[in-house]
Amino acid sequence: MVFDRTPMISPNLSGIYRGVSEIFPDRPDSSNPDENLVKLLTKGDRPLRIKLGIDPTGTDIHLGHSICVRKLRAFQDAGHTAVLLIGDFTARIGDPTGKSETRAQLTAAQVAENAKTYLDQVRPILDFDTPGRLEIRYNSEWLSGLDLAKILDLLGTMSVQQMLAKEGFDNRMEQGTAIYLHEFLYPLMQGYDSVALEADVELGGTDQKFNIAVGRDLQRHFGMKPQFGLLMPILIGTDGVQKMSKSLNNYVGLSDDPLTMYSKLEKIADRSIAQYFELLTDLPLDALPENPREKQKLLAVNVVSQYWGKEAGDRAQLDAMALVKGAAGEADAVAEFSLASVQFPAKLFYILSASGLCKSSGDARKLMQGGGVKLEGDKVSDVNLTFESPAELEGKVLQVGKNKFVRLVD
Amino acid sequence: MVFDRTPMISPNLSGIYRGVSEIFPDRPDSSNPDENLVKLLTKGDRPLRIKLGIDPTGTDIHLGHSICVRKLRAFQDAGHTAVLLIGDFTARIGDPTGKSETRAQLTAAQVAENAKTYLDQVRPILDFDTPGRLEIRYNSEWLSGLDLAKILDLLGTMSVQQMLAKEGFDNRMEQGTAIYLHEFLYPLMQGYDSVALEADVELGGTDQKFNIAVGRDLQRHFGMKPQFGLLMPILIGTDGVQKMSKSLNNYVGLSDDPLTMYSKLEKIADRSIAQYFELLTDLPLDALPENPREKQKLLAVNVVSQYWGKEAGDRAQLDAMALVKGAAGEADAVAEFSLASVQFPAKLFYILSASGLCKSSGDARKLMQGGGVKLEGDKVSDVNLTFESPAELEGKVLQVGKNKFVRLVD
Repeated sequence: MVFDRTPMISPNLSGIYRGVSEIFPDRPDSSNPDENLVKLLTKGDRPLRIKLGIDPTGTDIHLGHSICVRKLRAFQDAGHTAVLLIGDFTARIGDPTGKSETRAQLTAAQVAENAKTYLDQVRPILDFDTPGRLEIRYNSEWLSGLDLAKILDLLGTMSVQQMLAKEGFDNRMEQGTAIYLHEFLYPLMQGYDSVALEADVELGGTDQKFNIAVGRDLQRHFGMKPQFGLLMPILIGTDGVQKMSKSLNNYVGLSDDPLTMYSKLEKIADRSIAQYFELLTDLPLDALPENPREKQKLLAVNVVSQYWGKEAGDRAQLDAMALVKGAAGEADAVAEFSLASVQFPAKLFYILSASGLCKSSGDARKLMQGGGVKLEGDKVSDVNLTFESPAELEGKVLQVGKNKFVRLVD
Repeated sequence: MVFDRTPMISPNLSGIYRGVSEIFPDRPDSSNPDENLVKLLTKGDRPLRIKLGIDPTGTDIHLGHSICVRKLRAFQDAGHTAVLLIGDFTARIGDPTGKSETRAQLTAAQVAENAKTYLDQVRPILDFDTPGRLEIRYNSEWLSGLDLAKILDLLGTMSVQQMLAKEGFDNRMEQGTAIYLHEFLYPLMQGYDSVALEADVELGGTDQKFNIAVGRDLQRHFGMKPQFGLLMPILIGTDGVQKMSKSLNNYVGLSDDPLTMYSKLEKIADRSIAQYFELLTDLPLDALPENPREKQKLLAVNVVSQYWGKEAGDRAQLDAMALVKGAAGEADAVAEFSLASVQFPAKLFYILSASGLCKSSGDARKLMQGGGVKLEGDKVSDVNLTFESPAELEGKVLQVGKNKFVRLVD
C-alpha cells in the first residue's frame, strides 16, 4: 500500500506562534531561513522536523505537559512532521547518584508501559493518522550504542565554565551543593538526540533553553544546520500560584475523567484564565465572554471536549451542574442569598452566619473545622478563609451538612 | 609446559621504600594491611598487583620516566606482579578539543609501534622472564567496551566540586581558561583502569596523586579494596633546574647510546647528584665517593651499565676519556695547569689567559665568542662564565682551537 506522503504545507503562522514565549534564533529582519523561523516556515519546500522530548519516568500527564504537545499539533496542521522523542534510555539509566527521586531507575518494561500510557494520553491532541505527520522515536536507538570515544567527543564540545553558567548549576555551585559529573551529560544527551533526529525545531518549556541550545551546538559540531528553539510558557496550576505539578496537587490530568476535568477547570481563577485560554484552547482571545463565570465554563467545556469529545464536554457541564443541584435537590429549590448586604473583604464563617445557614459565627467556625461546610462541592475547613469581593462567590453554592444550601448572588 | 608460578615473596622494604616521596594511605601505627602498606607487604600471602600506567603517545623515554619503572622492578624483586598498563585507548582517542599537543590522535599502528618501542627501552629495567612477575595490559581491552550507561555510572561517583579542586583545574578556573568536559573523564578512565586491573598499588609521580586517589574511590564504588598510591619524586633535568623533559632538552634518553648517556651523566651538577643516585641506582648512599668528579663518574658508569651492561659502562667511561684525549692527542701530551694561582670566583676567559692558551683576556673573550673554546669537549661561548671554586674545574680539559689543550688541576 502506498501513501501519498507529500504533505500540504501551509504557513499557518498564527497557530504556530500563539502563546510562544521565545523563539531562538529570532532575527525578524533576516531573509535567511536559518536564523528567521518565519522565513523557514514560509519557504515551505519540505516538511520540517519538529522535535519534542518526553520523559517516560512517570505516567500521569497534565495540562502543563500538553502545551508543547498542542504546539506540535499546530506544526502538524501546517504540514510538518512531529517527532515525538521518548527518552527511554535515560529513564532506564536513572540517576547514578540515587540522589534525585525523579531519576529512579526503571526497567525496560516499565518504560515501555509508561511510554504507551503517555501516547494514549496525547492521542487526542496529535494527528496520529495523516501519513508523514508523526514519527515516534526512542533515544535508546542511538544512545545505547554510544561508546567512550564518541562520548569523549561530545564532552569535548563544551567547557565546564559554559555548563556551570547554566541556570540551576550556577546557584548549586554558589550554595556548595554537590553537582555530580554525570549531570553534565544529560544536556549533551538531549542535544545529541537532536543530531540523531535531524531536528529543525525543538519545542520545550522556557526551562529548556540551555538544553536546546546545546542541541544547536552539537548539530553544528556534526556539520548540520542547527535547530530552532521554540519555548512555551510554564502553566500556572489550578491554585493560581505555583506551576502546575502533580506533586503540588494543583494539576488537571489528561486522563482525568470528563467531570473531574470540568470541575477543576470551571474554578480557574480569573488571573490565570487568560493563560489557560491562550495555551490550552484555539479559541480567539478577543471573543471570550466577559462574565467570569461564563469564561470558566467555556474554558472547561472546551478543554474537556478536546480530550473526550464535544458530547462528553457538554455532558460534563450538565453533570457538574447536576452535582450541585443533585445535592441541593432541585436547582429551583436552592434559595439565593444576596451578598449585597455583606461587607467585603468578608470571612466565609460570617457569610455562613449572615445567610442563616448557621446559627452564629461560632457555630459556623465549628462546622467548618468539623468538615461540614462545602463551597461549590469542595470542603472548606480553613476558618480564616476570606473573600475580597462578591465576584469571587457569585453563582456559587454554599452548603452546610447534607441538606442546607444557598446560592450566593451579587 | 608448566611453570612454578608461586613467587618468592620477600618484604625487601628497603628497595621498595627507597626514594619514595609519599605513600597513601599511610598509617604506620595501624595493624590493618588495608591502610598500612608495610603490613600488606610483610603479610606476604600473595603477590600484590603493582600498576604503572604508560602513555604511548611518544617514543623516547628518559631517566625521569625510569624512576617508577625501577620501583616496579623493586616490587618484582620482592615477589610481586608488575602490571604495566599501556594506555592505548586514550592515545588513540587523542584530545577532542585539539587544544593539547600532547594528546594528538594516533592510529592503532602508531600506538602499537610506540608501545613496542617503550617496552624495548624498559626491558633492561624490568624482570621480563620470571613467570608471574610481569603482566602487560592495554586499556582498550575494557575502555573500548564501556557504554553510556557505565560511563554515567562512573561520572556519578564524583562531583564537579571535587574535580575542580584538582591541581591544574583550580587555577584554570581562576584564570578563566576553558576546561573541556572530556578532561573530567581522564582521571576517571585512569581510575577505572585500576578497577579492571584489580591493582593493589599504583605507582606514579607526585603529580599523579589525584588520579590515583580517584582509582581508590572507583575501586570502593565497585566493591573492591582500594589500592595504595606510591608517589615518586619528579627528576631534575641535566640542567639542574627544571624537571627532566624532552622538550627542554635536559634529558638522558634510555635509548641514548652508552657514550652519549655517559657524557651527559658525568656532568650532573653536585646539587642534583644525590637525587640521581637515590632514584636511578641501587648504590648505598652512605658509601659514595667524596670527590665530586669521582661521584659523577660512578653515577655515569653505573647508570650506563644498567641499560647497556657492565662492559658497555666501562667502555663508555674509557671512550669519554678518549674523546677528550683523542682531541688532545695523547693523554700524557696534555699539559696541566694548576689552578692554585687563580683567585676564585674566576671567569673562564681569565683562566684561558692565565694558562697561556690565549695571549690575553681580550683574545680569550673573542675566541670564546667565535666558538673556538671548549671545556671537556663542550663549546663555551658565554664570556661571563664564572666558576666559584677550583673543584668545579678539577681534571677537566680546556681546549682552544684544534690543537691547544691544558688539563686543569687543583
